[in-house]
Amino acid sequence: MAKLLKGAAVTAALNEQLKTRVQNLENKRITPCLAILRIGERGDDIAYEKGAVKRCDSLGILVKKFLLEADAGQDKLMETIELINRDPAIHGCLMFRPLPKHYDEEMARNALAPSKDIDGITNASLAGVFGGTDSGFPPCTAAAAMEILSHYDIALKGKNAVVIGRSLVIGKPVAMMLIKENATVTICHTKTVDMPAVCQRADVIIAAAGRAKMIDKAYLNENQVVIDVGINVGEGGKLCGDVDFEIAEPIVSAITPVPGGVGTVTTSVLAKHLVEAAERTVR
Amino acid sequence: MAKLLKGAAVTAALNEQLKTRVQNLENKRITPCLAILRIGERGDDIAYEKGAVKRCDSLGILVKKFLLEADAGQDKLMETIELINRDPAIHGCLMFRPLPKHYDEEMARNALAPSKDIDGITNASLAGVFGGTDSGFPPCTAAAAMEILSHYDIALKGKNAVVIGRSLVIGKPVAMMLIKENATVTICHTKTVDMPAVCQRADVIIAAAGRAKMIDKAYLNENQVVIDVGINVGEGGKLCGDVDFEIAEPIVSAITPVPGGVGTVTTSVLAKHLVEAAERTVR
Repeated sequence: MAKLLKGAAVTAALNEQLKTRVQNLENKRITPCLAILRIGERGDDIAYEKGAVKRCDSLGILVKKFLLEADAGQDKLMETIELINRDPAIHGCLMFRPLPKHYDEEMARNALAPSKDIDGITNASLAGVFGGTDSGFPPCTAAAAMEILSHYDIALKGKNAVVIGRSLVIGKPVAMMLIKENATVTICHTKTVDMPAVCQRADVIIAAAGRAKMIDKAYLNENQVVIDVGINVGEGGKLCGDVDFEIAEPIVSAITPVPGGVGTVTTSVLAKHLVEAAERTVR
Repeated sequence: MAKLLKGAAVTAALNEQLKTRVQNLENKRITPCLAILRIGERGDDIAYEKGAVKRCDSLGILVKKFLLEADAGQDKLMETIELINRDPAIHGCLMFRPLPKHYDEEMARNALAPSKDIDGITNASLAGVFGGTDSGFPPCTAAAAMEILSHYDIALKGKNAVVIGRSLVIGKPVAMMLIKENATVTICHTKTVDMPAVCQRADVIIAAAGRAKMIDKAYLNENQVVIDVGINVGEGGKLCGDVDFEIAEPIVSAITPVPGGVGTVTTSVLAKHLVEAAERTVR
């Protein structure tokens, strides 16, 4: 039976630490403040926003919402980003993406001040995570996967880590963060031949393929730690990960559940980045 | 006996193609122009500069040199970069690095206009190569390794590629470019455990470790293509790669020599990026 790498314990530890850091900022008369920039009314965005607001409230972080109509237009969007950049009371911004199709997303994401880019969407943040520097911030979900590994003291130095997925939001950044921790990293994707064989050699698997239950016993053995970043809607509308949990849990050494794993840590990482951004303004 | 992946053939093919492209630009009254920005008189820089100037001359590319004393200072450097950015007759800039220690290199490299960043040093270029977009340009040496693979029709889709080295100039960018070509990529480094075993599973090895002749028969088999990016000074002052060529050549399927391999292609790739930058100004 695998050790369950629950997100709740990670979140609890992070929140404890963040409360102290928010208090220290308050002592310097700084109230950390998150800007949420949302265009339109997509259900996924609103659900994530609710979680982020709740998390911030519980930690003493202010939230300022900037909500635009789906057809507000690029100019209005750029103005809003400028407003956020210029406001010294705002320390970071969560901009929901993808933007509706008629927006120039690249222009929008790079307009955000890198110092406020707490979800790793600007070129400065991407270059930072690629180069292993602290320019900007890494994407929150990738950072959440790393936070879980760190919280549960999973050794990475010299270990073989296999990342399944090559997106710029999870796969590639998490690969770079694993390399920074001295893991030997293999990046797999839809064109990989014999992925089960590749995964059999892994000490740590990061599943970010976005395919419900694709990881089954062919990929797994008793020495592995499995971090499941997938959030898919499976049979009967039930949430499930990229890993077939029922099959994997009796085999592997440790595994994150879905739901209750990486997803629950993401908003805490968002809050951590926000607090860090606020701290950087007084360093 | 391995097929020799000589740089000369790649360079010859590139130059043919570039001459036509330069002529097409001339027909639009555009003469491609490279700015070389060098601080001080480091021997390596001057040697590379000579090669680049010779290559540009032979292709009809103008070169404008900006040479600063080693103690010119940051302000003077930033002014010079601004001059280069503002000059519409200059299409790209090669800025030698590392800068002398008393310069702020990050400030300098990000001051360069991404559109003129033909050697992949700005955050925009790094984000571009990380994300697989054409924002800026990849570093020339990494691109040269890919150019050789492409010239010799080495299949990459679904193949296992192992990159040895995790620098931001070669290892990481070449890994991203291999992923874009649908290879499954493993990144090894000094902390990798049992690197020979990892390399034994590779169809393609990119050696960019910077350690003379570290790759010996333990790493190699008859099915592999080996791209040796290393340029080291070996015994008796002779140039050698990261691969022990005498040992490797009888074993593997194909290999680049050192010298005469990747290094000879780099200035042609620099010229290619410069021509591409000039073409982008009229698109």
